[in-house]
Amino acid sequence: MSTSTMPLGPVLIVGTGLIGTSIGLSLRRAGVDVLLDDLVPGQAIVARELGAGQLVDEGAKPEIVVVSVPPRHAASTIARVSRAYPDAVITDVTSVKSAVLREAIDLGADARRLVGGHPMAGREVSGATAARVDLLDDRLWILTPGDSSAESLRLVQQLVTACGALAVEMSPEEHDRAVALVSHAPQVLSSVLAGQLVTADEAYVRVAGQGLRDMTRIAASDDQLWTDILSTNAGPVAEVLTSLIDALTVAREGLRAVSEGRSESTISEVLVTGADGQRRIPGKHGGAAASYESVAVVLADAPGELARLFAAAGDEGINTEDVRIEHILGRPSGLVEVFVSPDRGEALRSALRARGFDVRA
Amino acid sequence: MSTSTMPLGPVLIVGTGLIGTSIGLSLRRAGVDVLLDDLVPGQAIVARELGAGQLVDEGAKPEIVVVSVPPRHAASTIARVSRAYPDAVITDVTSVKSAVLREAIDLGADARRLVGGHPMAGREVSGATAARVDLLDDRLWILTPGDSSAESLRLVQQLVTACGALAVEMSPEEHDRAVALVSHAPQVLSSVLAGQLVTADEAYVRVAGQGLRDMTRIAASDDQLWTDILSTNAGPVAEVLTSLIDALTVAREGLRAVSEGRSESTISEVLVTGADGQRRIPGKHGGAAASYESVAVVLADAPGELARLFAAAGDEGINTEDVRIEHILGRPSGLVEVFVSPDRGEALRSALRARGFDVRA
Repeated sequence: MSTSTMPLGPVLIVGTGLIGTSIGLSLRRAGVDVLLDDLVPGQAIVARELGAGQLVDEGAKPEIVVVSVPPRHAASTIARVSRAYPDAVITDVTSVKSAVLREAIDLGADARRLVGGHPMAGREVSGATAARVDLLDDRLWILTPGDSSAESLRLVQQLVTACGALAVEMSPEEHDRAVALVSHAPQVLSSVLAGQLVTADEAYVRVAGQGLRDMTRIAASDDQLWTDILSTNAGPVAEVLTSLIDALTVAREGLRAVSEGRSESTISEVLVTGADGQRRIPGKHGGAAASYESVAVVLADAPGELARLFAAAGDEGINTEDVRIEHILGRPSGLVEVFVSPDRGEALRSALRARGFDVRA
Repeated sequence: MSTSTMPLGPVLIVGTGLIGTSIGLSLRRAGVDVLLDDLVPGQAIVARELGAGQLVDEGAKPEIVVVSVPPRHAASTIARVSRAYPDAVITDVTSVKSAVLREAIDLGADARRLVGGHPMAGREVSGATAARVDLLDDRLWILTPGDSSAESLRLVQQLVTACGALAVEMSPEEHDRAVALVSHAPQVLSSVLAGQLVTADEAYVRVAGQGLRDMTRIAASDDQLWTDILSTNAGPVAEVLTSLIDALTVAREGLRAVSEGRSESTISEVLVTGADGQRRIPGKHGGAAASYESVAVVLADAPGELARLFAAAGDEGINTEDVRIEHILGRPSGLVEVFVSPDRGEALRSALRARGFDVRA
């Protein structure tokens, strides 16, 4: 009875928040049968109305169960569905792996049928209504097989592909160290930096610029969710923090040395090393995947100016990869940077100049 | 012979880089006579060609001299111009104040005629060609009078106003503590965090998302300039670093407590306090000046789509305050967030829906 174009499904999604519902939407796009379940029945109904699948029935026989519940409830939910669906392969999307998988197995989950997972997606918003069919497209989706059978792993890899994502294998421990480094410890750092502002003089805070704004943006994240995440990955995050504390202490001693008239070499090295590390990050401002060219334009701060700018780019068939608007004192200034493929930078500059735009370096 | 509409000038600008040339451009806009000087004569000529003023002659009698040279050369330059122009008021634009002003006076600068300054402007680029006539518009421009005469202070305040900026007074020590907190220590933090990536496994770095990208953006800044800045403000920056190290140590101990089965209250408090601090920052994502509303739209990743979006906003007379394009794996995704005044959010959503856009929460 399946309308699937792939030999996959039905897939049962337990927990229809942002990630669960987005997985449902992308699986439906691929023609996979999707069943939906949520502790809060209304949530599953919202996901169904969005087109993420059908509500699960008693006696359903899912081939795969995707557990996408908050970190705090992940292990117990995995163990529960492992018992409830003894023929299904189970995967989860929890952003911490070792502790959750170990606890799930301790609670009775079948390790052979369990494949840990973590799609590298997410937004600063949550809930089914924020879900998107393309949320997982081209994303990395880390799988941490552990003691999974080869057949279980193969099925979950198929699921990842059906969602449009790229499966990458790591051990649960490697995964947890990786996210501690690139996501969890930076979250703590951002919160700690922003925390310094609580007792700061108003005159000091007023002087804040774009650098501080960028560095404290994620300090606004959901504190309950992050308490869960950090608590579940406490060991690896504490290790990265130790490393950061050591490096900051070196930097501070370097500054004290300068105060005492000694060499600037330590602080200079901190800055040079930081620039080296920054270049390794994939994305527009560094690394191999990076290389966009910036075209800077001074605009009148008035309705329609951005439209005129992007219309010019569109007319030339130039795709705009990113936009950055400078802010001063919390107000946008007239400087807009448009990022385009390096081979289109000059074409865009010419097109904009021809239309009377004030194009800068 | 002055064409000035204000009783100000001529103003001599010593050092025609980004800030010096921008000051020249905005003073010329206000009708003030501007003279230009640079250690590298070609640089002053570039500034003149851009319209920032005339090259200085032997025997010039400036009313104000603005020293806008790299931090390393600021004190000696201030002392030199104080002797060369015994009737002029001297100000500078160096991003560190106490050490520079003290050293300048030690080298013979006249404290009564010297008013320290620091315009809170700047870009990730440098040089005269990056200068803009509006770089200083509506910016805070901190003045640190110290032992200046009232007349000297009044003249420099007039200069700041003529540039379109807002003068704010602080003591040199307050200034240095403020920028240590909101600019210099965050720079070290960003560099130290990015520095952790140098030796990290490629698989780990690959997992990096927007949060890490934001937090390490300023790690790409000019290391020589920042070695100068940090060295000149070493004491106050070291103090903020101590505070950050202490707070990170508390966070780490909180995580270790969780590892050992104890309470999550410490780590939760770090996150809550961070969110509180973040809200104090003026700008779009927090604070009083903040309050823009975000309208999220899913776009086809094709030329012309952004233009269509902004044209819709422009047609409705809605000014776009900021734009944010989500990135995945360094590629832009289809999700664009447009920030507008809170009273225009619903109007924009309706206008976009009416044109067939996929508008989200």
